[in-house]
Amino acid sequence: MKITIIGTGVVGQTLASKLNELGHEITMVTRNPEVTKSRTEPNPMSGVSFADWYKDNKNIKLEAYTTCNVDADLIILATKGDSSVNALKEVGKNNLTGKVLLDISNPLDFSGGMPPTLFISNDDSLAELIQREFPLTKVVKSLNTMNAFLMVNPDLVPGDHNVLVSGNDADAKSLIKELLESIGWKQKNIIDLGDIRSARATEQLLPIWVQLMIVFGSPEFNFHIVRK
Amino acid sequence: MKITIIGTGVVGQTLASKLNELGHEITMVTRNPEVTKSRTEPNPMSGVSFADWYKDNKNIKLEAYTTCNVDADLIILATKGDSSVNALKEVGKNNLTGKVLLDISNPLDFSGGMPPTLFISNDDSLAELIQREFPLTKVVKSLNTMNAFLMVNPDLVPGDHNVLVSGNDADAKSLIKELLESIGWKQKNIIDLGDIRSARATEQLLPIWVQLMIVFGSPEFNFHIVRK
Repeated sequence: MKITIIGTGVVGQTLASKLNELGHEITMVTRNPEVTKSRTEPNPMSGVSFADWYKDNKNIKLEAYTTCNVDADLIILATKGDSSVNALKEVGKNNLTGKVLLDISNPLDFSGGMPPTLFISNDDSLAELIQREFPLTKVVKSLNTMNAFLMVNPDLVPGDHNVLVSGNDADAKSLIKELLESIGWKQKNIIDLGDIRSARATEQLLPIWVQLMIVFGSPEFNFHIVRK
Repeated sequence: MKITIIGTGVVGQTLASKLNELGHEITMVTRNPEVTKSRTEPNPMSGVSFADWYKDNKNIKLEAYTTCNVDADLIILATKGDSSVNALKEVGKNNLTGKVLLDISNPLDFSGGMPPTLFISNDDSLAELIQREFPLTKVVKSLNTMNAFLMVNPDLVPGDHNVLVSGNDADAKSLIKELLESIGWKQKNIIDLGDIRSARATEQLLPIWVQLMIVFGSPEFNFHIVRK
């Protein structure tokens, strides 16, 4: 299918490469494509600059927020949380109407240093805020509780572990679950948490995720919900 | 050892029975012992009233907050989160000075119905609040991320899954880890998350815990952190 990815950081790049490899037609959107293409500083997480990554992913289109014409079957929001709403506004409501939006962004606030706090939490969530701002878009929250490399390669961590899905629209959630299965997530490890309000619960997993990353000195872990 | 348990609900009862069975000398403290002993309504979680539970646990002492004289090696806080600080104040600072306090309580706010929100979260936690109020007490947060019956019987859920520990005092955390091992928690499944600030992360697990309980229709599950 046609997939538009908003955000060109490691999450966007990693998903773009994998989904392109799976045969999808990928367009990435960013504020200024020329500036993005000229970025030669290595990303601290991947060790690769956007410029170098893009050399190996030439068939991925790169467009600007304000001039893109989104005709995708799926839009993936892979920006930093504090840029999410603005990026979507720049892409424009018309481009988002009726579309499925997979929101991977997290409301992390690093202004106080590490570990971060959340700039929205508890009685609200970033996913709900996005759903309220774009009521005609079908927002699905998922994949936000793990490292980018694990998102596209569940076998990076051995055995069973989970990916969580929240959203109001059943068909939109089905589309995301099928996409997750095509990436390699076992059906039994995909947990449908309920409507978009349940994204509060997954966004509030970030504090424990960050704390575990600090304790382990590695982001290569995931949550497995073990049942009786 | 001598253990004082604050709170006479299912968490307090379940821990009291188990720790008594393991040979510890248990005192429970409550606002009014006579009122507590006369409670004949079955607890919705355990199906047993306090009066009936107490008949089977006669060697557990029951004392009042305001008149108790705590000479315990360990104090366990098993109240509802919104009663935690008040209960500790009634027990009195003198009774808590220099003591290890295992805080199992969670800052759940059910005033808006299910699922609950947290009355303290994100940039603070109930455990930190307690540590600030009682700076000479060695507060350790643990066991707050699971059902009471699982706390005392890790085999209720099959295989490996975790219990998390947060606190500022290394010796106090060692005491709690030994207690957890004596209950049946495998050493490798006990994760030391760091100082008491890291309790923010475990208290913020409650929203996902409650959401999963709603989805599964059962509290018999736990989190396992799976590593590469």
